[in-house]
Amino acid sequence: MDVSFIGSGNLAWHLAPTLDNAGYTVKEVYSRNPKHSSALVGRLYQADVKATLDFSTSPSDIFIIAVADDVIQDIVREIILPEDSILVHTSGSQPLGVLGYAATPNIGVVYPLQTFSKAKKIDFKDTPIFIESDSDEVTQVLIKMGKLISNKVKKITSHDRKALHVAAVFASNFSNHMLTIAKEVADKNGLDFELLKPLIAETLNKSLAIDPKNAQTGPAKRGDLEILDNHIEFLQGEPEIVEIYKIISQHIINQSE
Amino acid sequence: MDVSFIGSGNLAWHLAPTLDNAGYTVKEVYSRNPKHSSALVGRLYQADVKATLDFSTSPSDIFIIAVADDVIQDIVREIILPEDSILVHTSGSQPLGVLGYAATPNIGVVYPLQTFSKAKKIDFKDTPIFIESDSDEVTQVLIKMGKLISNKVKKITSHDRKALHVAAVFASNFSNHMLTIAKEVADKNGLDFELLKPLIAETLNKSLAIDPKNAQTGPAKRGDLEILDNHIEFLQGEPEIVEIYKIISQHIINQSE
Repeated sequence: MDVSFIGSGNLAWHLAPTLDNAGYTVKEVYSRNPKHSSALVGRLYQADVKATLDFSTSPSDIFIIAVADDVIQDIVREIILPEDSILVHTSGSQPLGVLGYAATPNIGVVYPLQTFSKAKKIDFKDTPIFIESDSDEVTQVLIKMGKLISNKVKKITSHDRKALHVAAVFASNFSNHMLTIAKEVADKNGLDFELLKPLIAETLNKSLAIDPKNAQTGPAKRGDLEILDNHIEFLQGEPEIVEIYKIISQHIINQSE
Repeated sequence: MDVSFIGSGNLAWHLAPTLDNAGYTVKEVYSRNPKHSSALVGRLYQADVKATLDFSTSPSDIFIIAVADDVIQDIVREIILPEDSILVHTSGSQPLGVLGYAATPNIGVVYPLQTFSKAKKIDFKDTPIFIESDSDEVTQVLIKMGKLISNKVKKITSHDRKALHVAAVFASNFSNHMLTIAKEVADKNGLDFELLKPLIAETLNKSLAIDPKNAQTGPAKRGDLEILDNHIEFLQGEPEIVEIYKIISQHIINQSE
């Protein structure tokens, strides 16, 4: 089967070559920024840059929208698809229905639950891929595609997909942001972030092994208010970080009681 | 050298047997809760439970206080030590001076930068251990002890130790708490936390490989306010979690501008 990508961001950057290597052929890449689509085309065997959203003469069977959520609707309104083609989006939070305006009844969602950055290679094998469609036929096509690249393909509803996305924001974006702040504190005090890496690795290993709640340690968990005050004083001059420190500590304290 | 532990919490639970195996002999364990000291003694070769803080006839050379920070001062006021012994604490945030009241000039700090839970075995080899003392002799004794169990032993000031501890709270306690919330969201929606584990593992690997700030992804990083509103609506009924969601997202947005 032939595939076209609309979007050339972090997800498309990894998903398009992975499909290419799995036996699909990525034929076209569209991006608002032609530099980005050119860069992605450079990672593919037979793809061309597509300059417009008029795909009426496209050879592709599946069109994958991999753009920021707030652009999906604009794409759907503008895109022109060949007959009998399938249109999917890859968002965690957008309902299937956001594709309802498209001039095809064959719509679906392919949501890989993973964090993608261009600078870091990703192995899709362990990445859960969630499929949604109101057509059995489309569901089968998308499950088949998912299974060619991942060992963890599941059907999911729009509601559960959104719940997973919310959970993923905490599990990935927010946990990573805590590391960003940790590095800032270290940097600001002339301390090497390397020193924190064994702690970070062990935290994660433990959390996955014995459950995050059981793995919790530290002054908030122990209810050591003196240390909390002490740290807040240390962070004075950084009101945003102080507020984050306070609110998360309070939540840990509330859950430990 | 012989060692006695005051405290039998998560750190002592792992540090005492590690010292025992490294050629030190742990002779005594004191805890306010005798059940806890008995349990730790059960993990050691020759140690006895110590019922009081009168160590005047103790055979030990080094006394390691491994208790919650807010109890250290009480211990220091009460403890009676044999002559020429060394008294250390293991806290990230307490200054060396908190031991100043003790009836020995030989005081120091041994701070292992790691997260300890009884249920999870720890390898000290990669755990950075930070040493502080105002005595060169004590410093040498503590560095020697540290190097027997870890490959990363460094001298550090009280200020830098506190900075590391603050950074560690974000890097470990708070990042882990984000996983706790993620699991709660998954549980509440009947979704298996297992599904999030590949994402969590990849987030960490990427963050350590390319730097947490470069590794950041997600709706806040993209400035996708519609998704943020959408998620906040999804979380309604959980005001504490909503507040955490808002404040961290805002901080990511501010840093992405």
